[in-house]
Amino acid sequence: MTRHTLSLLALASLAATTAHATEGMWMPKQLPQISKALKAEGLALDPASLKDLTAFPMGAVVSLGGCTASFVSPQGLVVTNHHCAYGSIQYNSKPERDLIKNGFYAATLADELPAAPGSRVLVTVDMKDVSAEILNDKTRALTGKARTDAIEATEKQLVAACEADKGHRCNVYPFFGGLQYQLIKQLEIRDVRLVHAPADMVGRFGGDADNWMWPRHTGDYSFYRAYVGPDGKPADFSKDNKPFTPKYHLKIASSPLSEGDFVMVTGYPGRTNRHRLPREVDFTFNWEHGAVVKAVGESIDLIKAETAGRRDAEIKMAARMQGLQNFYKNRNGQQASFEGSDILARKTAAFEQLKAWVNGSPERKAKYGADVAATDALLAEREAIARAEYLLGFATPSMLGSARQLYQLAQERAKPDAERKPGYQDRDLPRIRAGLQSLERRYDEGSDKRLAAHFLAKYLAQPADTLNAALLNAWGLKAGQDEASIRARLDAVYAASKLADTPTRLAWLDKDVAAFQASDDAFIRIAVALYDDEQKREARDKELAGKLQKAYAGTQQALIDFHASRGEAVYPDANSTLRISFGKVQGRDTGRDGETWTAFTTLRGIVAKKKGPDEAGGEFDAPQVQLDAIKAKQYGNYYVKSLDSVPVNFLATLDTTGGNSGSPVLNKKGELVGLLFDGTLDAVISDWDFNPKKVRSICLDARYMLWQMSVVDKATRVLDEMGMK
Amino acid sequence: MTRHTLSLLALASLAATTAHATEGMWMPKQLPQISKALKAEGLALDPASLKDLTAFPMGAVVSLGGCTASFVSPQGLVVTNHHCAYGSIQYNSKPERDLIKNGFYAATLADELPAAPGSRVLVTVDMKDVSAEILNDKTRALTGKARTDAIEATEKQLVAACEADKGHRCNVYPFFGGLQYQLIKQLEIRDVRLVHAPADMVGRFGGDADNWMWPRHTGDYSFYRAYVGPDGKPADFSKDNKPFTPKYHLKIASSPLSEGDFVMVTGYPGRTNRHRLPREVDFTFNWEHGAVVKAVGESIDLIKAETAGRRDAEIKMAARMQGLQNFYKNRNGQQASFEGSDILARKTAAFEQLKAWVNGSPERKAKYGADVAATDALLAEREAIARAEYLLGFATPSMLGSARQLYQLAQERAKPDAERKPGYQDRDLPRIRAGLQSLERRYDEGSDKRLAAHFLAKYLAQPADTLNAALLNAWGLKAGQDEASIRARLDAVYAASKLADTPTRLAWLDKDVAAFQASDDAFIRIAVALYDDEQKREARDKELAGKLQKAYAGTQQALIDFHASRGEAVYPDANSTLRISFGKVQGRDTGRDGETWTAFTTLRGIVAKKKGPDEAGGEFDAPQVQLDAIKAKQYGNYYVKSLDSVPVNFLATLDTTGGNSGSPVLNKKGELVGLLFDGTLDAVISDWDFNPKKVRSICLDARYMLWQMSVVDKATRVLDEMGMK
Repeated sequence: MTRHTLSLLALASLAATTAHATEGMWMPKQLPQISKALKAEGLALDPASLKDLTAFPMGAVVSLGGCTASFVSPQGLVVTNHHCAYGSIQYNSKPERDLIKNGFYAATLADELPAAPGSRVLVTVDMKDVSAEILNDKTRALTGKARTDAIEATEKQLVAACEADKGHRCNVYPFFGGLQYQLIKQLEIRDVRLVHAPADMVGRFGGDADNWMWPRHTGDYSFYRAYVGPDGKPADFSKDNKPFTPKYHLKIASSPLSEGDFVMVTGYPGRTNRHRLPREVDFTFNWEHGAVVKAVGESIDLIKAETAGRRDAEIKMAARMQGLQNFYKNRNGQQASFEGSDILARKTAAFEQLKAWVNGSPERKAKYGADVAATDALLAEREAIARAEYLLGFATPSMLGSARQLYQLAQERAKPDAERKPGYQDRDLPRIRAGLQSLERRYDEGSDKRLAAHFLAKYLAQPADTLNAALLNAWGLKAGQDEASIRARLDAVYAASKLADTPTRLAWLDKDVAAFQASDDAFIRIAVALYDDEQKREARDKELAGKLQKAYAGTQQALIDFHASRGEAVYPDANSTLRISFGKVQGRDTGRDGETWTAFTTLRGIVAKKKGPDEAGGEFDAPQVQLDAIKAKQYGNYYVKSLDSVPVNFLATLDTTGGNSGSPVLNKKGELVGLLFDGTLDAVISDWDFNPKKVRSICLDARYMLWQMSVVDKATRVLDEMGMK
Repeated sequence: MTRHTLSLLALASLAATTAHATEGMWMPKQLPQISKALKAEGLALDPASLKDLTAFPMGAVVSLGGCTASFVSPQGLVVTNHHCAYGSIQYNSKPERDLIKNGFYAATLADELPAAPGSRVLVTVDMKDVSAEILNDKTRALTGKARTDAIEATEKQLVAACEADKGHRCNVYPFFGGLQYQLIKQLEIRDVRLVHAPADMVGRFGGDADNWMWPRHTGDYSFYRAYVGPDGKPADFSKDNKPFTPKYHLKIASSPLSEGDFVMVTGYPGRTNRHRLPREVDFTFNWEHGAVVKAVGESIDLIKAETAGRRDAEIKMAARMQGLQNFYKNRNGQQASFEGSDILARKTAAFEQLKAWVNGSPERKAKYGADVAATDALLAEREAIARAEYLLGFATPSMLGSARQLYQLAQERAKPDAERKPGYQDRDLPRIRAGLQSLERRYDEGSDKRLAAHFLAKYLAQPADTLNAALLNAWGLKAGQDEASIRARLDAVYAASKLADTPTRLAWLDKDVAAFQASDDAFIRIAVALYDDEQKREARDKELAGKLQKAYAGTQQALIDFHASRGEAVYPDANSTLRISFGKVQGRDTGRDGETWTAFTTLRGIVAKKKGPDEAGGEFDAPQVQLDAIKAKQYGNYYVKSLDSVPVNFLATLDTTGGNSGSPVLNKKGELVGLLFDGTLDAVISDWDFNPKKVRSICLDARYMLWQMSVVDKATRVLDEMGMK
C-alpha cells in the first residue's frame, strides 16, 4: 500500500556505503561496479545492458511520479500497483459507480477512462552529470541566498535547454546532499488512461491492517495505458489519440519463480537516509516522529469521524486517507525499531570517527574542517524552523492553499518565464491546472474545515511570542483562541469564498495581481495578506539552504573520501531517480522466536483471513466469486505443486523504499515475475539503517495477478494483449 | 502442562490402524512389527532391545500414575515434568514457604521432601496376555452383570496371585475395547521425595496462555528420588530408607540434537480414541464437549473468583486448577478442530464400510453381525446415563465424597478380602488413606461450597421427573430450589460435619457400618442415606457393562479382521500402558499461510515474551536472575551456534497423548535429549484423528534444563549426580 513517496518534510539526500551483497539502490551508471555481483547472484543478461536506459529492459520501466510502472505490451499497456493507480480509480468513482469497491475493466479501448488530472507516464531517456555546470566557479564563490539563487538559475537554464526537445520533461536532481547533480530527461506522456483494476478487496485486501505486514495476500496491481497524439508524440487527452508504442516492453516469465531465485527491480525509490548525520537522526526520531507523525494520526482520526456514514465524502478522502495511514504506520514502525536500538549511538560514533579522520591531517582539516564544523549549527537552525512552523501545513484549508498558489502564480506571470520561480514557469502550468481541477474529487468541506479548526487551535495554543503575526492578522485570529471560536471564524471564511466551485477556481489561473488585490473572496484576501510574509520566509529559507548546501556537500565529500581511503565504495541515497536493486526470493525469521516466514503465500491465506464486511473494518472481505474459485480449486495455469496452490505474494531480499511501488520484479532473464509493493514494518527502519537479516521487499506474484484476471475477473482482452491465454 | 491423564468420564479403549510412518504408540511386544521402520528412521540401538522391559533403556522408564518419568542416576534420581511433580510441590507449599513460586532445591539428601501422599514410582517389570483366562468359556457364556462380575473376579484372582510377590502392584488392562487383556506387573516404590524444582516462572513459564501452544519456552522439569527400605525393597516413608538403585538409568546425550534427528519416547499414554464408533464421536463432540467441558469452564471461573486474593486458598486449589484448565483448553482445542471438519462423516463412512463387509458373507454375518448390531442401542443407554448424571460429579462436596468412600469401605471390610469390590481391598488401603490425608492440602471450604451450590442448583433446575429422588431425600433438597436456599442448606451441612478435620476423617477408616449408621456427622448421614441407591446404580452400570463388553469386543474383532483382510496392521489405542513412539525433530507450518514453526525455540524467546508480574496474569514473569544470565550471554556449555543461543523447547513428529508427560525423549543411541510435555492445540484432535502434517509433540530440550540448573539455579549436586559438570 505503501512504497510510494509521501514526503511531508523536504529532506536532502545522502550517501551510504555498501556492506552487504544485496544492499544498495544502484544508479545505472554504477553497473560496472556491481556487474560481478550481479553475475554471481545469477543474472543471465549482460549486466552492461542494464546501463543503457534506452535498451531492454530499462527502456520498459517508467515512472508515474511517486510510483514506478512498466510497459507490458506493444500497445502501451502499463502495469503498476493498485495503490499507485488508486488516485485515478478514486477520481472516476462515485457512490453510484463505485470503481474503488467493484474494480474496473474496460472491455474495449474506447471504454478506457482518463486517469486523474496530472497523471503522467515518464520514460527516462537520459541522465547526465551536470555537477560542474551547477557548481561552477562563480557559484562556488557565493554563499547564502545568492548561492541558492545561482544554483536555481543554472538549473532552470539546463532544464529549459533540455525541454527544447518537445514532449520531454527535464529535472535536475541533487545527489550526495548537493555534492553532485544529474540532469534527467524523461519522455512525458500525459494522456494516461485506466484500463483495469481489481475490486478493492483484491487490490487492497487486508487494508491498513495488513499494510507493511507479512504474511500478505494483496492483489496490488492495476493497468494504465499510455496514449500519444496521431503523430506519435505526447499530447493532451483527445479522442483522436492512439496507444503509445514503446520501444520495449516486459514479457511475463517463461519459467516458474521459486525460493532462492535471483530477482531484481528497477524503479524510482524516493528517499533513504542511510548516511544522515547523528543530529538529523536525533531530530527525526526524538522530535519529528513525536510531533509530525502525531499530527498525521490526529488527521486520520478526524477524517474518519467526519466522513463516517457519508460514502461520497469517504470516496473523496480515500486516496488522502490511504497516504496518511501509510505514512503513519511506516513512521511508527520506524520509531518502534529505533527505540531500544543503538542506531543513534552507532551514527554518533561513526561521525566522531569521520571527524577524527578529518582532523588527523592538516591537509584534510583545511579541505573539510570548516564544512564539517558548520553543519551542526545550520541543521539546528533548520530544525528550529520546522518546530515553529510544522503545524501550519496541517492548519491550511485546501482552498487557502489554492488561493496562495494562484496568487503566487499571478505574481510570477508578471515576469519573463526564465526569471520566474521554479514551479511557476509555463512548463508548470498544466500540472498546476490539473491539481486545481482534480481537487474537486478529493475535497470534502466538512473534513477540510474540521482539520483546519483542530490544527489552528493547536497552533494558537502555543506561546504567543512564537506565533506568526502575519498569519494571525491575515486570519483575524488571536493567540490562545479556543476551537469553537476558531470554528466560527472558519465558517464565516468558507462561506465567503467561492473557490470550492471548480470553474471559479480555475478562472483565477488567468487573472493578474490587481484582480487578486481587488477580490473580496475570503481565501483570496487571506492569501494576499499572507504574501509578504511568505516571501520573507522563503528568502530566509534560501539563505539557510545556500549555507547548508555548501557545508553539507563538503561533509559528504569528506565521508566519501574517508570511505575511499578504506577501499569502500559508496552508493548515493535514494532521491526519486532510476535505480536498480537485486536479491533473492527468500523468507525470514518473524522476529518471534520459533517462527519463520515462508517465501511465498498462497490462495489458502485469503480464505483463512476472510472476514465479513462488518468485521475488522471490512478489510478482509474477499469477493465471494474469488472464494468460490479457490474452493473449487480452479487454479487455471497457475498451480504450483510445492505450494499446492497458486502463489499470491512473495518476499525477496531487495533493497527498496517508498517510490519503488509498482516496480517490475524481473527474473535472471529480465522477465516479469511480479510487482514490488511493500516492505515489512519491522524493517522500514532500513531507510536509515540497513539490516540484511530483516530487510525484505513484499512482492505481488505475477501468477496471482494472472490467475485473478483469467479465472475470476475474465479480463481477457488485457491478458491477450500480454500474450497470455 | 498438559500431557498427563485427567479422565472425567471412564472410556473404553479401541484400536487404530497405522497409515503413517510416525503414527502409533506401540506395545513393546509389537517391536518386531516396527523394527524395520525404526532402523530406517535412524535408531542405532538393536530394536529388539526395546522389547525387554527389564533391559536398557526400557528398564529406566517409569510411571508416576498419570505421568511418565525416568531414572537418571544410579541413586534413584528421577526426572519428570514440573507439571507432573506439581501436586508434590503444591503439597509442600505454604504462603510463608512458597515452593510453587520460588522453586525448590534440596542441597543434601536430608533436605529432600516427601512427595504428596500416594505418590509412587512404578517400574513395569512384566506384561502378560491374560485374555484367555479373563474371557474363559464360563465367562463367555454369561451376559450382563454376571459377565462383568465374572471378569472382575478373575481379574482379582490374577492380581492377587501376581501381588504375592511383595512390593509389586499388578493390574489387568483391557485392550481393543475388552477384546484382549494384559496383566501388568510393576515394582511399586512408595517413598518418593522431591529433590529439585525450578521456580514456577521457569517450570510453568507461559502458564495457561502458552499451554498447548507453540512457540514455547517452558522449563517443564522437576526431580524426584525413589527411596526403598534398608533391605532394598519398597517401603513406606522412613528416615532409615535409602535411595533406590535402579538397574538402568538414562544418560544425558553425548552429541547435540539437531533438526531432522531421530527421536523416540517411551511412556504411558493415557487414552486415544482413533477407532471409536461414529455414535461415540457424535456424542463426544456434539454433546459432551458442550455439557461437561462447559461445566469445567464454570468450575474454573468459580474457583478463580473464590480464591482471588487468598494465596493460601490459591495454593490449595493450584493443582486442581491446573488440571481443570489443561482439560478445558484441550477439549476446546479438539472441538475447534472438529467443527468444520469431516471427521464424523469419515468415521460414519468407515463404519458403514465395516458393516457392509460384515454383511457381505453369511459366515461373517454369523460371527460378528449380532455384536455390531447391538452396540448402537447399548451406547445409547450409556449416553443417557451420562446425560442424566454428569452434573452430580460436579455437585458433590469433597467431604461427601470422602464420606461415601469411607462408608463403602466399611461395607466392604465386612467381607473377606477376595470378595470385596475392586478398589476396596487391603491392597487399596494405602492409596485410600493417602488420598484422605492429602485432601487437607487441596481443600478450600469456600471453593468447595461454591462449586457444590452452583452445580446443585444447575442439577435441580432440570425437569423434576429426571432427578434422583434418593439424592433429594438424602440432602433434604427439592427440585427447582434456587442457589441461595441451596447455599443455606449447604452452610448447615458443612457446619454439622467434622470431616474437614484430618485426624477425624482418617479415624473413620477403622470404623464399622454400625458406627456410620449411628453417626450424626452431616456428611456421613447423607452418605449412609445415599448408599442403597448407589448400589442400585452400580448394578445397573454393571449390567450394561457386561452387555457392552461383549458387543464392543465383537465389533473390535470385526474391525481387526476387516483390516487384516486388507493387509493392514493394527495397534491398540492408548490405555495408560507402556508404549513406544518414534519420529524426528521437525518444525511445521503454523496453520497461518506464509508462516512456519522452526524445530527449536531459544532463550531469546523468553526475553521477548517476558512480561511483568501484573501483566497477562503474571504468566510470563521470567525470573530476573535468568534474564540477566541471558542478557550477559552466559550460555555455559549449552550454546548452539546455528541458533546463536541455547535451545529451550523443540518439536518432534512423535505420536503421544496425555500420560506421556515427563516421558524421556531419547536419541538414536538411547540417550536423553529432552522431556516430552505437550502437544499443539490445533492437533490435539489427534486423539481421535491422526494427521501427520499437524501432529507434533512439544519437548523440553535437555540443554535448557541443564543450562538453567547450572548457570541460573546452581543445582550442582543434582548435575553432578547426572554426570554433568
